Parts: sequence; C-alpha cells; structure tokens
Amino acid sequence: MSYNHFFPTSIKNALSNDPPGAWIPKIPTDCIRLHRGYPASSLVPYDEIKSAVNTLIDNEHDLPLHYLGSAQVGLLKEKIQRRLSERGIVVKDAELLVTSGSSQALDLIARTLLDQTAVVFMEAPTYMEALETFKNYTKQVISVPIDEHGLKVDVLETLLLKRKQEQLPMPRFMYTIPSFHNPSGVTMNPERRHRLLQLASTFDFLIVEDDAYGELSFSEKPIPLKVTDPEQRVLHVGSLSKVVAPGMRIGWIAGAEKLVSACNWFKKDLDHPFAQATIGTYLQHTDLEQHITQLRNAYRSRRDVLVAALEQSMPEYVKWTIPGGGYFVWLHVPNVDTSLLLEKSLSEGVSFIPGKYFFLTPSEGKYYLRLSFSYEEPERMVEGIQKIGELITENYT
Amino acid sequence: MSYNHFFPTSIKNALSNDPPGAWIPKIPTDCIRLHRGYPASSLVPYDEIKSAVNTLIDNEHDLPLHYLGSAQVGLLKEKIQRRLSERGIVVKDAELLVTSGSSQALDLIARTLLDQTAVVFMEAPTYMEALETFKNYTKQVISVPIDEHGLKVDVLETLLLKRKQEQLPMPRFMYTIPSFHNPSGVTMNPERRHRLLQLASTFDFLIVEDDAYGELSFSEKPIPLKVTDPEQRVLHVGSLSKVVAPGMRIGWIAGAEKLVSACNWFKKDLDHPFAQATIGTYLQHTDLEQHITQLRNAYRSRRDVLVAALEQSMPEYVKWTIPGGGYFVWLHVPNVDTSLLLEKSLSEGVSFIPGKYFFLTPSEGKYYLRLSFSYEEPERMVEGIQKIGELITENYT
Repeated sequence: MSYNHFFPTSIKNALSNDPPGAWIPKIPTDCIRLHRGYPASSLVPYDEIKSAVNTLIDNEHDLPLHYLGSAQVGLLKEKIQRRLSERGIVVKDAELLVTSGSSQALDLIARTLLDQTAVVFMEAPTYMEALETFKNYTKQVISVPIDEHGLKVDVLETLLLKRKQEQLPMPRFMYTIPSFHNPSGVTMNPERRHRLLQLASTFDFLIVEDDAYGELSFSEKPIPLKVTDPEQRVLHVGSLSKVVAPGMRIGWIAGAEKLVSACNWFKKDLDHPFAQATIGTYLQHTDLEQHITQLRNAYRSRRDVLVAALEQSMPEYVKWTIPGGGYFVWLHVPNVDTSLLLEKSLSEGVSFIPGKYFFLTPSEGKYYLRLSFSYEEPERMVEGIQKIGELITENYT
Repeated sequence: MSYNHFFPTSIKNALSNDPPGAWIPKIPTDCIRLHRGYPASSLVPYDEIKSAVNTLIDNEHDLPLHYLGSAQVGLLKEKIQRRLSERGIVVKDAELLVTSGSSQALDLIARTLLDQTAVVFMEAPTYMEALETFKNYTKQVISVPIDEHGLKVDVLETLLLKRKQEQLPMPRFMYTIPSFHNPSGVTMNPERRHRLLQLASTFDFLIVEDDAYGELSFSEKPIPLKVTDPEQRVLHVGSLSKVVAPGMRIGWIAGAEKLVSACNWFKKDLDHPFAQATIGTYLQHTDLEQHITQLRNAYRSRRDVLVAALEQSMPEYVKWTIPGGGYFVWLHVPNVDTSLLLEKSLSEGVSFIPGKYFFLTPSEGKYYLRLSFSYEEPERMVEGIQKIGELITENYT
C-alpha cells in the first residue's frame, strides 16, 4: 500500500524536503566532534541535576511523576520570569510559555502563524533546525543576508519595499538570532536592532528573536530585541539548553499574550512536567548568575583556544569573525567545497558542519563551515583544527 | 494590536473551539478526585524511577543530559518493541516511534494525516483530549456511537456506504479505543474488531488504535487490532503513562513504516532524551510483567470497591457497565444534567467529569458522567460515591 493518498498536500510538500537531521555527519568512533553544538561535558551540572531529582522525589514522591502535580513546575516558570526581568524583559504570567526546549517553541510559533500561503523571512545563514521547521509549514521562506554586524537591515528594507510595490504579502515574521548567531557567531549591532524593530512596525510583521546563546557573552552583553518592543511584535525564544542541559528540554516563548496563548493552545500537554519540576528544583539550589559567569569564562577561553589554533593552522585566505559569545566560529574557505572537505576530514577523525546546511539555497554555503568550540576539550579542539588546516593546505593551496 | 491578521484561517478556526483542558473541574482543596485519570500515587514506582536516575547519571554522567547521548534511549525502544511482540504486535525498528506520551503520538498522527479538508471518525463518547487535538486540525469530525460491546460497526458501515453513495470523502482514519474505553470502560468484541478491519479495507481508511489501557485487563486480555492487520492500516498508539508514570511522557506509534516515518519527520527532537533514558534504565531493572500484574490486581480491586459503592449508593435508575479493565466507570444518570450535578458535587468536595466533554455534540453527554477508580484510595472513593449518590437522590428522585 502506498499511503500517499492519505497525506494532505502540505505534508507531501514537507516530506519532499531534506529529512530532519540531514546535516548531522555520520561520525566514526573517537572522532573530534567540532560539529557539535552541545555544551561541554564538564560544564553540564549532572551531579546537581541528580541531586535535584533526589530532592524532588524525596519531598514529593509520585507528585512530579503525574501530568500535573509538582509546584516546582510553577517555580521553574517564576525563575525564568525573574531571569528574563533581570535582562530587561518584563513579562506577565500570560506572556510567558515554558516549552520543551526552543525546538518546541519554534515549532509552536510556526504552527500558529504559518500555513502554505505564509511568508517567512530568515537570515542567511541561519539555524538549520529552524529552517527545517519552517519549511515543514511553508515553501515561502525568504533569505536576508547578514554580515559581521548581523542582519543587513538595508537589504531587508529593500526587499520589503519591493514586496509592497508588487503587492506581495508581507512576512508573518522575521526569524533572527541577533546575539552570537548560529552559525556565524556575529551579533547584530544596536542601530540595526533599532531599524529592524522600526521596519516590523512600518511593514506590519512580527519578529521571532531566537536568543539561545544570548546569555553566553564574553565581553559586552547585547540587549535583546524584546527589551525595546513597545508594540509587542517580538516573540522572544529562549532556552536553558546552552546554560544548563539540552536533554532537559527547557525553553520558552515570551511575547504578546494573544500570541503566547495561541501557542499554548497547541502545546496542550506536550511538555514534560518531570523535567520541568527537576529543573525548577535545580534552580532553587543554584546561583544561576554564578553558574553562567563560570560558563562565560570557560567558553571564552575555549573560543580563544580555537581562534589561536585557527591562526596557527589555517592558510591566510581562510577567514573568520571572532565571536563575542556563544558556541561557534564560522569559517570562510574560498574555493573549498566544504562538503568534500568534510569527507576527507571525517576520514581523519574530525567533524564540522558544512556551510550548505545553514542556507535556504545550499550553494550559498558551499565555501563555509561551522566549528563549535563548546563541546570538545581544548587539546582535542587544537588537534582537530590542525588536521583541518593541513587538509586545506594539502588539497587546495 | 489585535494580531488576528497574523493567524491563518485554520488556526482561527481552532482557536474558536473550547480551550484545551476546559473539562478539568476547578477543584477545591482536599476534594475527592474521581475525575482524575491518573494512576494511584501508591502504584507509581517513584523510588524505582529515582534509582534509575541515580544509576543512569552515576554511569553516564552528562551523556543522558544531551540531545542525544545515552544508549538507554535505544534500550527503551527495544523494551517497548519486545513488550509489543509479547502481545502479538511484531514491528520492525522503522515501524515504531517512541513519542512524548500518547498525546504527542496523536498530535503527530493528526499533523501528518489531517488538514482542513480531512474527515475523521471517532467514537461517541471518546477521549476528550483526542477530540480536542483532532478539532485543532479539521472541523470534519464525525461521531459513531458505541454500546456495551464497543463501536457500533453496523452504524459505521451505514455511514460509510452513505458517504460513498453521496461521493463524500472517506475518513482519513477512524480513531478508536477498543480496549477498556475512555470514558465508557467497554471493550470492543472480537467480531466487531474483525468487521472494523474489514471496513477499513473496503472503504480505504486507516485506523488509529488508542491502546492506553490495553495492558490493564482484569480478566480477559483483548487482542489489539494491530495484531490482525495484514494491510497495515492500523496505527497502534500506546503509552507507559498508565503502567509506569504519566509525567515521564513515554508513548509510541507502531504502524506502517511510511506513516511512522512521516510522524518522525515532524517529531524531530521534540521528545525527551533524559526521560527516555531514565525509563530505559528503569525497565532494565524491573520485571514489567510482574509490575503490570500487580497493577491489574490493584485496579481490579479498586474497580470492585467502586462498583460495590455504586450499587449501595445509587438510585436504581442510574446505570453503568462494569469495565473489564482500565480506569473508568461510565454512569448513565437519566434526567440529571451532570454539569449541574458537578457544581453541587464540587461544593460537597467530590469531583467527576460530566459526560458532555466526551462528545463532539456535548448535549449527547448531558446525562452521563465519568468516574475514575484509579486515583483515589478506596475509602475516599466510597465516600465520594456516597456523596454523589445522596446528591442525586436528594435533588433528582
């Protein structure tokens, strides 16, 4: 039986895209994983999370193991709310939705705002999972380039004006990662942030601000778009994946009540009360500010190690921007097809992600690659960069 | 700002339904919770789950706290696969998808098979959360009545024939809870199961078999529809919520590879690796068969307590079917509007769910209510039933 006739057209369209996770390299054992956007093993507070589970179950027995039950679920929300307000994002209860990681947040936003006729703007390059998610809902994804200061708002404006002249629909939203961008590591400057908010108002669209790395600043702390959002056009998406542990799947959406409650409508009970109660308990016993400071210091020195290794190992024509935070360095390797380079690199035991996966039009990413300095220990990182450098020098110079 | 213009029509339609969870009574403190489809506190293996977390983190440190990492996630899938095969459901790897509870399973099935033009058949009454979920995708939900032997397949056949004559589209799927039905407690007999499968073949639709309570048999074990499904038309949805702990959100879909892989496409990483690794570890150290036997005995005696209390406390015109398994007894209380009865009952400190929430057409459920014998301890259950009985006798006899 073919089953094809059971699928709606929109689903058939979605299934014609690359499958989810197509970008994950098939990794040989013991590979140096420079592709991985995971926190470092040594920086995941697993003992504290274990203690939190013990405390939680010792105090509450079966309560946190039901659909609803533990008050720590509410505590988690409070803790997130407080942390956001410390960063200048003041939201009421009904303006904040705790989700299963930012993945669920983005999926819920797409689900409530997109259909086959909807237009979405994204940066190029952009987070590949967001691209996968939005492409599951609409074919009308449009890219706007970035440079070392973030989103090119002038190009955005031109695009918007042209659409207006041609009477084409405006985007439902612009998806952006303004701070410590994935994959490029760049941060949108304040002038551009201001201009983006103005354009959203003028042309009447929403902004989805993915702030996954926003807390991990190595020097200056960028101010989230959501902080200066008088018209409530920004849906701020955040997560504890990069600052606590990704497997606990704690994320959120902060935004206008009407939008957040629509997302909640479709979330129903698809989140995880046990994970939420566990992290609520963990946060009760943790100085989050201190923990994040420790992460900032650790990742800053890892970045320094990676950048130093690049300077040592890469031929001169290879370029990168030094990120002010986050997990990633984005390499421009002119005339080197990074998909082919990955094959060679994997056989030498080093992984990275080829640039093509971060673009709506994969060919735009052909000469780029993403390196992560978050996951591997410094010595292995240096070893990995040396090998990639050698491969480029040997094969392409 | 109204935001309304940002929502696609399908979403506006969905948001015009009752909000999710509208059926949950607003409960006073210390209420006897006969509405709750939760496992009994004393039957949730919280100490074993705590041990599983400790074992897991002691052995694997941060591994289970990443997106991917712990091999126990794979082990969980194997354990589910083995358990299904013990029940006669033999599925290959690609035919089984582990989900965040059966809620996510149903949502993924709806998402991949439904759009605004799709027709869905459901039993009347049916599981209110499935009803909520499907109504989020289509307005074309059609009810088929049940009686004490389950789905009325003769009515189903008449409906299908009529649609065929009128050249109306066939349902994408029929959603059924064949064993220990929620809310009615009834079980579809073997002849009707056979007939349903035949009809699916003749009229070319799929069957979504919700087997949430299938393991909790008090005497005879019904054979799942999926066991006799040569054409692979059945999507078997199951869950550990009723046999381990609902808050761990472990469910699954077993069915044709093509359908399961479409669900997986949209699932992406919206499940919970930590919860899955924890339950994988728990199952490694548990004799599940023995645990389920213990549950069957415990819930059987709770059922007996509830039924005895009903016999003692209810006026003669109140009717119910004695369930052969599961969590629920379904009361028919002729001429008593159970929504009004609930108000009185809550003020006496006893909750239940009025029948209307289990029907597409709420008025059909006006004189019914669902009682759960799973959650409250026997003495409190008896006390609750006595109070409801008194209220009915005093106010309506």
